[in-house]
Amino acid sequence: MKLELSRVVQGCRLGLLTGLGKSGQHSLEVPGCLLYTRCATVPHLTQDTLHTLRDLPSVTQVSVDSLAEHHEVLKEFKEGVRKFAGLHDTVLFCSLHDSANSSPAGHVTNKTVSVWGSGGRIELTVARFMAIQAAIQPDCYQSMADGETWQAGTSRKRVRKAVDRTLAHLDECLALHQKTQELKQAEIFGVVEGGDILEERLRSARETAKRPVGGFVLDGFHSAAMDQDVRVQLIKATSAELPQEKPRLVLGVGCPDEVISCVEAGVDLFESFFPFQVTERGCALSFNYTIDPDPETAGTSTPTVLEFNGEMPAVKKLNSNGDENMTPYEMNLKDKRYQDDFRPLVEGCSCYCCKKHMRAYVHHLLVTNELLGGVLLMLHNMAHYLGFFKALREAITSDRLQDFKNRVLHCREGD
Amino acid sequence: MKLELSRVVQGCRLGLLTGLGKSGQHSLEVPGCLLYTRCATVPHLTQDTLHTLRDLPSVTQVSVDSLAEHHEVLKEFKEGVRKFAGLHDTVLFCSLHDSANSSPAGHVTNKTVSVWGSGGRIELTVARFMAIQAAIQPDCYQSMADGETWQAGTSRKRVRKAVDRTLAHLDECLALHQKTQELKQAEIFGVVEGGDILEERLRSARETAKRPVGGFVLDGFHSAAMDQDVRVQLIKATSAELPQEKPRLVLGVGCPDEVISCVEAGVDLFESFFPFQVTERGCALSFNYTIDPDPETAGTSTPTVLEFNGEMPAVKKLNSNGDENMTPYEMNLKDKRYQDDFRPLVEGCSCYCCKKHMRAYVHHLLVTNELLGGVLLMLHNMAHYLGFFKALREAITSDRLQDFKNRVLHCREGD
Repeated sequence: MKLELSRVVQGCRLGLLTGLGKSGQHSLEVPGCLLYTRCATVPHLTQDTLHTLRDLPSVTQVSVDSLAEHHEVLKEFKEGVRKFAGLHDTVLFCSLHDSANSSPAGHVTNKTVSVWGSGGRIELTVARFMAIQAAIQPDCYQSMADGETWQAGTSRKRVRKAVDRTLAHLDECLALHQKTQELKQAEIFGVVEGGDILEERLRSARETAKRPVGGFVLDGFHSAAMDQDVRVQLIKATSAELPQEKPRLVLGVGCPDEVISCVEAGVDLFESFFPFQVTERGCALSFNYTIDPDPETAGTSTPTVLEFNGEMPAVKKLNSNGDENMTPYEMNLKDKRYQDDFRPLVEGCSCYCCKKHMRAYVHHLLVTNELLGGVLLMLHNMAHYLGFFKALREAITSDRLQDFKNRVLHCREGD
Repeated sequence: MKLELSRVVQGCRLGLLTGLGKSGQHSLEVPGCLLYTRCATVPHLTQDTLHTLRDLPSVTQVSVDSLAEHHEVLKEFKEGVRKFAGLHDTVLFCSLHDSANSSPAGHVTNKTVSVWGSGGRIELTVARFMAIQAAIQPDCYQSMADGETWQAGTSRKRVRKAVDRTLAHLDECLALHQKTQELKQAEIFGVVEGGDILEERLRSARETAKRPVGGFVLDGFHSAAMDQDVRVQLIKATSAELPQEKPRLVLGVGCPDEVISCVEAGVDLFESFFPFQVTERGCALSFNYTIDPDPETAGTSTPTVLEFNGEMPAVKKLNSNGDENMTPYEMNLKDKRYQDDFRPLVEGCSCYCCKKHMRAYVHHLLVTNELLGGVLLMLHNMAHYLGFFKALREAITSDRLQDFKNRVLHCREGD
């Protein structure tokens, strides 16, 4: 695995992560995202439905929490999760937790962390964690980590302990990794902890960078953990301690404005749980990320025409009877105003849902709890989110990041 | 619409229903089934996923109960449910109720019947019923009917009233049908009621047959309504009163043994809610319907090889911790015994699920409540059910109905 940076503009790293997968033939553009799954499946979608989407990420994310209780079966199966779940040829990245769920806190010890499966809590030592990785057979995985330091007001002592434990887990993981035949070609991502304490973030980054890791996971930066300004400053400082040629994946950050600010702070990779969360609340991503063609380069690229349909999403009004987590980047298709709206979700969008269906029909599916509603929304939301990342990379390439930010953040004006 | 019977063997009518759809270019083989939908969508499946199935029925069933509350929107849309729901080119049949749900009884009056949408009860006069049909724009639809006479012990007087009301509704429907521009090319199916009283069944059939209907709906024969022997005798007697050249659709019958006995009694068409119900309880249809090739004709046809894997479904045992509605034709994929079963659901099945996935993975999806579990089961169950109907027609064609029955009913031995 190797990250080839082609340019760095205003802190944004544009590049290509190459040599991925068992045979090293896969690559992933950065800034970019992994393909979010639960139980190794993209929620709502079959592999074939999923592959109606263009520009799918070459890396699929699975998590230990949804697979741990199937450890014995996977071990007996012997051929790893990729084959067990019938996935197409893809690179597998395995993280500890599913970022779309929040886990109860207070179950970390010096030697163990806990994950929650459908049957309840599962306590993991490093030995058990590594045995599960050997059964999952990912191409890359994050090492075991104590990530319970994101709550506001966590003491300096607790944060220090989390950094120490996480480094100790990493050393143990690396030692076992060497001895595990099934993980011979896999790479470990070291986890940077440190809560909101700059000194601990720097120590965690420096110490992790000394170990033979393939990349870095930035943990404890998710939306609920801290203000955006604090996050950006901490990530900037942390990034400066990490080697340029190794990728950095931030966990728990998915909202478009937060993604942009993390990219400016030096982050390369994101998860894609965000479009899934939007889907589950019956919403469709509808923000505009298409910048007007530069008159000098017009004609060399043909961005998809996306219209905002002249409507403001009116989040505040919707939130009164909608989901409190709703962001300004989405429209609530359950809202009655869409019941006789015969337009596609987003004009000009080329996803399966927008090509075939109207807002009124999706509204109808959602209010009658038909399962196809989630299928169609998930297809659109993934397409929109992947399109956003592609447009972000193009904006960096063409030195038009400010135009891109103006466009994406436009819908927040007046907040 | 015209039913061309090619042969009648032991009461079974084999034929082709032709001249279906607006332009009359569609046809449907009988005995056969309609494509079950809710809100005009096959539950769990997109149109594209659905079309991975072979031999899909050319007729799609929608029901008034799931569409009535969207009457105003459909009316404003003006182009009917087929286009509203983004359906492929298909014939639409509209029934009153969704047979997969049971509706509360006790809400029928002389002039109205009630259906239940997601927002509660909707009372329909014939005028409103016909206005809804004008908005739905089906190719065929059942007339409004009083079907609340299936409970055991319904009085003779109540049954007589239901037959009278249903005939009166039919006459009103036919009168309004003539005046409705949107239904110009559509056909009405008259509804035969009569509960379990032979005399009323015969009267209902004779009177309905006198009206200018395109076909007949046999109502009140569903599994919970009466014993199989009673149903068969009543349907046989009723069929004898109906013209040979018009199709007969029975509502609420879906289990394979019941389907076979109805076909022997003269029924042509069925719904396909049964594979959906099987899916919703986490089960997969797994009964064998492939008859051994006749030595004299071997080589002329190549039936799919279906193996029962040497296991009895052990329904009674499973029912103790499973779904009480489970039939001997299915396996409960939630059962722990499948957690390390790396075979397809049914060996040799050519559906998407069986080609790509193992029982262990489907089990894993179901126990963790992943939505893909329902998608995969629905694909398999529809494929299996459509295969059953195809094999039934082939058995009638080749005079091997008894072999077919022995094969299908085999799994009930020992019950």
